[in-house]
Amino acid sequence: MKTDIEIAQESRMEPIVKIAEKLGLMDDDIELYGKYKCKISLDVLSNKKENKDGKLVLVTAINPTPAGEGKSTVTVGLGQALNKIGKKAVIALREPSLGPVFGMKGGAAGGGYAQVVPMEDINLHFTGDMHAITTANNLLCAAIDNHIHQGNTLKIDSRRIIFKRVLDMNDRALRNIVVGMGGKVNGFVREDGFMITVASEIMAILCLADGLNDLKERMGNILVAYNLDGMPVYAKELGVQGAMALLMKDAIKPNLVQTLENTPAIIHGGPFANIAHGCNSIIATKMAMKLGDYTVTEAGFGADLGAEKFFDIKCRYGGLRPDCAVLVATIRAIKHHGGVKKENLNVEDVEAVKVGVKNLEKQVENIRKYGVPVIVAINKFITDTDNEIAAVEEFCEALGVKVSLTEVWEKGGEGGIDLANKVVDTINSTQSKFSPIYDSELPIKEKIDTIAREIYGAKGVTYTSSALKQIKELEEFKLDKLPICMAKTQYSLSDNPTLLGRPSDFEITVREIRVSNGAGFVVALTGDIMTMPGLPKVPAANKMDILDDGEIIGLF
Amino acid sequence: MKTDIEIAQESRMEPIVKIAEKLGLMDDDIELYGKYKCKISLDVLSNKKENKDGKLVLVTAINPTPAGEGKSTVTVGLGQALNKIGKKAVIALREPSLGPVFGMKGGAAGGGYAQVVPMEDINLHFTGDMHAITTANNLLCAAIDNHIHQGNTLKIDSRRIIFKRVLDMNDRALRNIVVGMGGKVNGFVREDGFMITVASEIMAILCLADGLNDLKERMGNILVAYNLDGMPVYAKELGVQGAMALLMKDAIKPNLVQTLENTPAIIHGGPFANIAHGCNSIIATKMAMKLGDYTVTEAGFGADLGAEKFFDIKCRYGGLRPDCAVLVATIRAIKHHGGVKKENLNVEDVEAVKVGVKNLEKQVENIRKYGVPVIVAINKFITDTDNEIAAVEEFCEALGVKVSLTEVWEKGGEGGIDLANKVVDTINSTQSKFSPIYDSELPIKEKIDTIAREIYGAKGVTYTSSALKQIKELEEFKLDKLPICMAKTQYSLSDNPTLLGRPSDFEITVREIRVSNGAGFVVALTGDIMTMPGLPKVPAANKMDILDDGEIIGLF
Repeated sequence: MKTDIEIAQESRMEPIVKIAEKLGLMDDDIELYGKYKCKISLDVLSNKKENKDGKLVLVTAINPTPAGEGKSTVTVGLGQALNKIGKKAVIALREPSLGPVFGMKGGAAGGGYAQVVPMEDINLHFTGDMHAITTANNLLCAAIDNHIHQGNTLKIDSRRIIFKRVLDMNDRALRNIVVGMGGKVNGFVREDGFMITVASEIMAILCLADGLNDLKERMGNILVAYNLDGMPVYAKELGVQGAMALLMKDAIKPNLVQTLENTPAIIHGGPFANIAHGCNSIIATKMAMKLGDYTVTEAGFGADLGAEKFFDIKCRYGGLRPDCAVLVATIRAIKHHGGVKKENLNVEDVEAVKVGVKNLEKQVENIRKYGVPVIVAINKFITDTDNEIAAVEEFCEALGVKVSLTEVWEKGGEGGIDLANKVVDTINSTQSKFSPIYDSELPIKEKIDTIAREIYGAKGVTYTSSALKQIKELEEFKLDKLPICMAKTQYSLSDNPTLLGRPSDFEITVREIRVSNGAGFVVALTGDIMTMPGLPKVPAANKMDILDDGEIIGLF
Repeated sequence: MKTDIEIAQESRMEPIVKIAEKLGLMDDDIELYGKYKCKISLDVLSNKKENKDGKLVLVTAINPTPAGEGKSTVTVGLGQALNKIGKKAVIALREPSLGPVFGMKGGAAGGGYAQVVPMEDINLHFTGDMHAITTANNLLCAAIDNHIHQGNTLKIDSRRIIFKRVLDMNDRALRNIVVGMGGKVNGFVREDGFMITVASEIMAILCLADGLNDLKERMGNILVAYNLDGMPVYAKELGVQGAMALLMKDAIKPNLVQTLENTPAIIHGGPFANIAHGCNSIIATKMAMKLGDYTVTEAGFGADLGAEKFFDIKCRYGGLRPDCAVLVATIRAIKHHGGVKKENLNVEDVEAVKVGVKNLEKQVENIRKYGVPVIVAINKFITDTDNEIAAVEEFCEALGVKVSLTEVWEKGGEGGIDLANKVVDTINSTQSKFSPIYDSELPIKEKIDTIAREIYGAKGVTYTSSALKQIKELEEFKLDKLPICMAKTQYSLSDNPTLLGRPSDFEITVREIRVSNGAGFVVALTGDIMTMPGLPKVPAANKMDILDDGEIIGLF
């Protein structure tokens, strides 16, 4: 079996200028980064303001297993399939982070015959957006410590600096550090820590901003610390938001690449799906909608986290109205939700399917609560049996939801034609009545309560005393009228990763509340959220190489 | 008076494909990064192997004042002037670091009418080379701490890890840190620190490697730590040099831009001029020599450090034979060496010129010791008087060295035509008899002694006991047969920054010896060398901004 990099390297890419031309982009609309990548000028959005927006399709998933359900692969495959049936489709995806690339095996560029290319560039430095975010983030951090060192006129409380440094690297040793050691010339000693770049609030801001000015203003609004009087200190008080915006001048422009079948793909931004909202940039999605008739995009994790944040945060801020959602499931994950252990997932078990499918049922119900038509896509694996597939299909029929068996990993767009047809039929026959599930003006606890009850199916929400104190503080500082960004395990509808299927009779516990005031959301943490991953015993990096003739080895 | 960014933004850049065409580069030889920057394929070097090499001109300087002598400006201006007199000239420069850009005012792209453009891109992320180095460096660091965390089969002594993390940022709080805090899952606690990216050994390696394989091999040879038995641990034992090379696959390709007068400029690599050798990459210089008839390049700091390392490290490893050197001096710096205080530099003082010019005399003598013809370039300032200039000219005449008054900052290439003619005449009339000043096979102390006596004019060298111990250790591990990289103040020929002019009767003290085994040199430190700068009270970043229409403010 060929690896992803082998398949990718055999592909016949078109020069990206050709892909851009097909989208109606002129020479001055793009900036090349080599022959197969370019950035799209933001002027395109204003120049094409009068154009009708294309249809917006969200690809989401049931609660995944640790192996993942192939959501990116289905997203890419569906885009390819829509093109195959004669529709002008544009894919909008998140940018991969280098950390996972070198850590565990697994890129973020799709897989098999449903990949975006050049995958080696997309998975490495791409067009430098991650590095720009890292630099802007760390400039602000250097400015904070420098401010304290130079006299601290803002009276920043060095025990209460919230804004952390970042690196695009899995590096556990940097999670908790002490900085400023070595005496007077090296600043004041304090506790600090690094997060991975995708966890930076700058990344979330990039993905929610509608332009450079908005980006700058949001960066200025980041709550970076509290002062010694307990009052908030914002980034703009350090005066470097202009320089930060300057560092982001190219990163704010969306990147255009293509799939193995030359379908245009806009890849831009990739915030964490727990402490942030896990979707590509609003700018990229809007650009795709201006350039194509169908935009296929995705959101991180399962629908309870990914689709919820896509709807309640991204669509709310972007004024987007999704026309259809595709819920990806695998027979393996459904069996996992039905109680089958990892080592037995290759054995047929129709009864387990009938139990596990309850997770899918809840996710379908959830998407319907937002007024968005939904289709189930079974991402086929070689071990799936006809009986198991039939069981899912029967269940979906009873639920009144269309279902499609997709084989895009193996067959590319060809394997997703049935799904593409069903998506088009659904959009043509069913009007989306999208609206977010809560009013962001409500008190924090009411918003969290709505998500927990309506989406997770929880009985209620418990708050730790520190979470309650943090809520009170945000209310006092009037930082509470923002959408909620839930940080929760992706493996369960609940906050307990071992409660599979469709759990009921559970409460969730909110342990901590933070505000990402620049991005514009309140983060509710329900468990330990790792913002700086570590490397495994044998990192993926150890298998990678590049030969003198340029051949790349071991990149998935 | 116009600022550099204003002059730069008024310039009429040619599309970089046009500049490339003039150099005989085809479409497949370059990769565009926007319309005005590109990378040049390394294949060009092998494809043009049979072409005659162009002439190589080094621009260096007397010991500078803290304000700098305008060496980059003269380098750019000389390139422009050579083109004006009908010669095919290519400039080879170092890449700027973001740290100084945001810290103190001062870019590294020349100035006035002798700049490389687009200066805003060159001074910000450029083509991402710095970020690639940062990432490769930090991947190795993460691998080291991960190795220890996962069982430490190499028995790495966490008290003796030499290889440090880097960021391209002035951030004093990161100079001395403690990592791995927070208990078992976060690794082992140890002391560490960040350097600025240009101080990374990976940067020095990039600048000395002759291709991707050599780069990989050198990165594998980095001495990263000692083990608990006191034996060296090399990067290759961590097994990530392949992944590091993969991260560097584009960074190794030199970048092509242009000057304000459309002269081609190859900008590639920019190592520290103290703990590293301070020259652009060998690949860039060789590429320039294959593409043009005259290559004008520079080396960091004054000639005692910059030219010495250019000759003894870069030319030795690259097999380069410089044809001519230009020694840049300003009347202000000469007066400074003659004892004039900073606040009086604007007042005519011919007597001080006659004293200070002794520094110039010694630097001329030094360059001649390498067998390289030398010309003095006076970089004219508006405060210089005719009498002062005449004094320098007379001195140079007595010394038998050609001198040229250049006004490239104010007039661009036009202001350097006399210098360009003198460079061409010198090259045509005088054969360079270049050879390094010491044999790298000699013992470390003999090599240092040669540099100190011959170049600095010292009586001798004192070693601290720890430096002696380190020398012994490197000899034991057979890591001593390498060129020496002196880390010394740039302001004096001695290791004492207050000894101006041409000091005599002094010794230098070597306080520490390190090996950059991947780069291939032994570093001898004669004082406190800052490898992570801090931000000033009001950082340059605080004056920078970008407006919604793209106008950039405050970038010099």
